Amino acid sequence: MKVYLEQEILQENEHQAEENRARFGGVFVVNLIGSPGCGKTTLLEKTLTALKEEFRMAVIEGDIYTTKDARRIEACGVSVVQVNTAGGCHLSAEITAKAASNLNLGALDLLFIENVGNLVCPAEFDLGEDCKAAVLSIVEGDDKPAKYPLLFREAGVVVLNKCDLQPYTNFDMDSALADLRGLNASAPVFSLSAAKGEGLDPWFDWLRSAVAEKKGRQT
Amino acid sequence: MKVYLEQEILQENEHQAEENRARFGGVFVVNLIGSPGCGKTTLLEKTLTALKEEFRMAVIEGDIYTTKDARRIEACGVSVVQVNTAGGCHLSAEITAKAASNLNLGALDLLFIENVGNLVCPAEFDLGEDCKAAVLSIVEGDDKPAKYPLLFREAGVVVLNKCDLQPYTNFDMDSALADLRGLNASAPVFSLSAAKGEGLDPWFDWLRSAVAEKKGRQT
Repeated sequence: MKVYLEQEILQENEHQAEENRARFGGVFVVNLIGSPGCGKTTLLEKTLTALKEEFRMAVIEGDIYTTKDARRIEACGVSVVQVNTAGGCHLSAEITAKAASNLNLGALDLLFIENVGNLVCPAEFDLGEDCKAAVLSIVEGDDKPAKYPLLFREAGVVVLNKCDLQPYTNFDMDSALADLRGLNASAPVFSLSAAKGEGLDPWFDWLRSAVAEKKGRQT
Repeated sequence: MKVYLEQEILQENEHQAEENRARFGGVFVVNLIGSPGCGKTTLLEKTLTALKEEFRMAVIEGDIYTTKDARRIEACGVSVVQVNTAGGCHLSAEITAKAASNLNLGALDLLFIENVGNLVCPAEFDLGEDCKAAVLSIVEGDDKPAKYPLLFREAGVVVLNKCDLQPYTNFDMDSALADLRGLNASAPVFSLSAAKGEGLDPWFDWLRSAVAEKKGRQT
């Protein structure tokens, strides 16, 4: 019975996700997913600051209770809609639709959705995004892709963050990449340090291509 | 309706948790909860190795798919029961009961349950443990207690791990502790580095007292 209910919830979510996708139109939408403290908000801060003259951007900020992250995004001068899940461990397509109704989607090129910090549940819920971005802090360990396979399998792009800390850990990049490639042969992988601002340019270039490609598909 | 179902699931879980608590008898049971990669397994490895001549111990290892962590625990020479949640984001009292049925509880002093790596969902499910141990890698950031308050409120003990990496991060210990104390005035907090084996003695001493206190209550 529990399994049946879960299927029903996921089907309802899928239906709403398709509606969201239609409403997003030509906006390229990235759903950022990763553990608490993997650096999603810092990656966003650096990305928004670097690209805000180039693109019209907005952020939907998922958080369980606080507005801490939304305030950090606001300080970058980009529109942000805060969503509190009040204990909920992931965003849903329905929550995303409500949040997006506060945005002028026609005036956007790029929309980031920062999911609740959680490597498990958010990966199950399609929000209508173009792409799930899996963010992994390398300090979490090289075994994480194999241990949390769903997100890495579903990801359209993978960011390995906090690479500046690699010398102080036993993170084995070859092992992590081998596991990742076993799950996902095609997603681009960017190794960087958002906090230190290192290695961000290939990620920015990938976003530029993705936005252009999405616009091309719409016209 | 969803809320009603969630209440029902939590009530069923609470009922089973009380049964587990009765079955655990004089065994001191610790439910380890924290994000992926916060160092739960490494903390266990160091703890089991240090205390295995002193106490009769076992581990229930929660993992979504793999047996990676269980194999690490087995290498410490301690009994381990592996539980795969097949995608599930937390352990339940029911899963715990099934796992515990594989252990000779009467021959144990100390049982560790390593929950699924997740700072959100596991905190909602009582497994019948004596104590939830919240494990936070300081690399996740000083804002995490405030952003994920349920676990830190519920915790009977808090371990701040990977403190050897603090010089390379902007983690503000005073700020984290202030937020923590606002949520939980009484839980002991241990700052340590499991990987480096630094600062572990106060944690071991706390376990010794807790095991003795539990035995005292039973006799």
